[in-house]
Amino acid sequence: MAQPKVAVIFYSTYGTNHQIAEAAAEAAAAAGAEVRLRRVAETAPEEVVKGQEAWAAQAEKMAHIPEATPEDLAWADAFFFSAPTRFGVAASQLRAFIDTLGPVWQQGKLANKAVTATSSAMNLHGGQEGTLLTLYPTFMHWGSILVPPGFTDESVTAAGGNPYGYSAKAGEFDDAGKAAVTHQARRLVEVAGKLIA
Amino acid sequence: MAQPKVAVIFYSTYGTNHQIAEAAAEAAAAAGAEVRLRRVAETAPEEVVKGQEAWAAQAEKMAHIPEATPEDLAWADAFFFSAPTRFGVAASQLRAFIDTLGPVWQQGKLANKAVTATSSAMNLHGGQEGTLLTLYPTFMHWGSILVPPGFTDESVTAAGGNPYGYSAKAGEFDDAGKAAVTHQARRLVEVAGKLIA
Amino acid sequence: MAQPKVAVIFYSTYGTNHQIAEAAAEAAAAAGAEVRLRRVAETAPEEVVKGQEAWAAQAEKMAHIPEATPEDLAWADAFFFSAPTRFGVAASQLRAFIDTLGPVWQQGKLANKAVTATSSAMNLHGGQEGTLLTLYPTFMHWGSILVPPGFTDESVTAAGGNPYGYSAKAGEFDDAGKAAVTHQARRLVEVAGKLIA
Amino acid sequence: MAQPKVAVIFYSTYGTNHQIAEAAAEAAAAAGAEVRLRRVAETAPEEVVKGQEAWAAQAEKMAHIPEATPEDLAWADAFFFSAPTRFGVAASQLRAFIDTLGPVWQQGKLANKAVTATSSAMNLHGGQEGTLLTLYPTFMHWGSILVPPGFTDESVTAAGGNPYGYSAKAGEFDDAGKAAVTHQARRLVEVAGKLIA
Repeated sequence: MAQPKVAVIFYSTYGTNHQIAEAAAEAAAAAGAEVRLRRVAETAPEEVVKGQEAWAAQAEKMAHIPEATPEDLAWADAFFFSAPTRFGVAASQLRAFIDTLGPVWQQGKLANKAVTATSSAMNLHGGQEGTLLTLYPTFMHWGSILVPPGFTDESVTAAGGNPYGYSAKAGEFDDAGKAAVTHQARRLVEVAGKLIA
Repeated sequence: MAQPKVAVIFYSTYGTNHQIAEAAAEAAAAAGAEVRLRRVAETAPEEVVKGQEAWAAQAEKMAHIPEATPEDLAWADAFFFSAPTRFGVAASQLRAFIDTLGPVWQQGKLANKAVTATSSAMNLHGGQEGTLLTLYPTFMHWGSILVPPGFTDESVTAAGGNPYGYSAKAGEFDDAGKAAVTHQARRLVEVAGKLIA
Repeated sequence: MAQPKVAVIFYSTYGTNHQIAEAAAEAAAAAGAEVRLRRVAETAPEEVVKGQEAWAAQAEKMAHIPEATPEDLAWADAFFFSAPTRFGVAASQLRAFIDTLGPVWQQGKLANKAVTATSSAMNLHGGQEGTLLTLYPTFMHWGSILVPPGFTDESVTAAGGNPYGYSAKAGEFDDAGKAAVTHQARRLVEVAGKLIA
Repeated sequence: MAQPKVAVIFYSTYGTNHQIAEAAAEAAAAAGAEVRLRRVAETAPEEVVKGQEAWAAQAEKMAHIPEATPEDLAWADAFFFSAPTRFGVAASQLRAFIDTLGPVWQQGKLANKAVTATSSAMNLHGGQEGTLLTLYPTFMHWGSILVPPGFTDESVTAAGGNPYGYSAKAGEFDDAGKAAVTHQARRLVEVAGKLIA
């Protein structure tokens, strides 16, 4: 199999999506991919972030991870996205990054690449599905090849059975979740490997 | 408050959405509405239904409930829908009924009426949100006034926190679910009452 | 009828959604509402905005309009939103504003209020519907009463027949569009007026 | 390239989606695929179909095309779906067929296969996007690899620029539409060919 390049792009406020992204990056690398783990830039004012201890601590914790750039997506053969819900849509920090992708999109550098996504929400049904269903249309605009997990592995069902992508209850990313994310990332690598072969 | 007329329209294969619909009808009546509880016609071949014991038993159990007709929606001031998921979309039995509504829709008899919806799915995240998110656009075509519950009552959060509408794990409609459905139906009646005042 | 308070909240890069918002504000006022027209804050870096002549000109053109705050939504009885598509989802500037609404949402100040939305896209089908379909779920989280236009007036069909809300081809907001927006805003006021009666 | 097997599955009331499906089947075959063109069974009562001249004529016109069975999807490596909108969701005839796929789905025979979809609607924005956005979640439940066209070819833009899939104004499938469908089908074959290589 060709060795695909995978960009794992995430936003995290309190850590859940950071954990998901790390698990995805690890699984993608283990599956033979070359991986870039990238966090999108924080767009909330610095005083807001610093005003909330848990938020500031998480910002500090992931400060060493490079910020995502459009070039990371141009470089990659496949994308793994993770961001928490904000009223049923991915956090605006991720949307702000996505809104900078016009130029690489127009150059065709986002097209024909495999993509999958994960999320988190406070309530059991508070956007766990909705956040992914309102995110995938964006990838359709890119001409992406969408690789949601469906029920292609028992780990999906064990982690809540979300066919659109793994979604955590905020703060509760556990072993079942890690298994589901691992499957989702590995499958992305497999599909991407075939697409670039 | 004006006494609104509410049509509770449901499809049920094994009973969960029948239970939800009964709870909604009861709550709407208790909130002062005139209620019609209606099941949509079964469209699966008779031999298929009879070939599955649990399905046949449920069909028998709700045989006394009148079949929904377009006139029921023309009559009503508000609609409460309930149907199980089929791969993220409401069961085709409900969609078949909806597809007969062209004439009443063209006469404007579906417009400006309040509507809300509930569902069920096998997996915790296997369409609990998705089924509602792919159903509400239909009501937008009708010119409906959509009344999803949001988080307007603690019963919503207690029952899983689905802001789009209550959704049960199949076969597990419980007291928390009943409280959420009761709130959702009562709120529908309140909004409908104001709209017709 | 009670005189509802309507917040018209928009984001505009090159002017189309600004025009839509002005038309909506005018129509809502004409229908008897008290209106606040508000633009959401620009979140793109100043050098990016200034680097594009048309973008900078539009920013200048709407600089006199007050920036939207969460308090505007707490104040209002109804919301009219307008923002251009970015790959099928409302521009991140609007999403960034929405992401600041956690506190007023938790206080219940967004609940039970009428809402409708409009958009724009470059291509005829490049998110004209999708952008609205990925925006309404957010309002469901708020416990909003959704008031998409459906086909409740001939102006809807004349302007392209988008039942989810008016959507312009970017730069082509015309008389037919203005009529559709006027209807959509007036209907919002009517529904809001009934809800607060 | 491996020669993928493509099932083109459609429903058509007055002919538009039949035309689209024929164009897709032709393009897929020209791209090297083995093709099965299949119409889903009519579920409307015979007297309803016969009561409308244009509907009856279309039924007659496609009577020679074999009815779709679950086995057709089990056989195929890729699926091309086409169905008209009914209030923003694919016609219930297609949904009824989809609802029979439980057994092949449980056997894993729908998983990991490429899929794309097209539609039609009466109004310019009356479900042209919405119908596809409410259909793709179903394929996510199957574990499909989604291949919407995005803007990967100029024919997409020329035909209205619908990134989710081609969608016709009912009765107006023209040369621009045919070019877009041809591209969409060819791309499906290319992706499917890589997936099975």
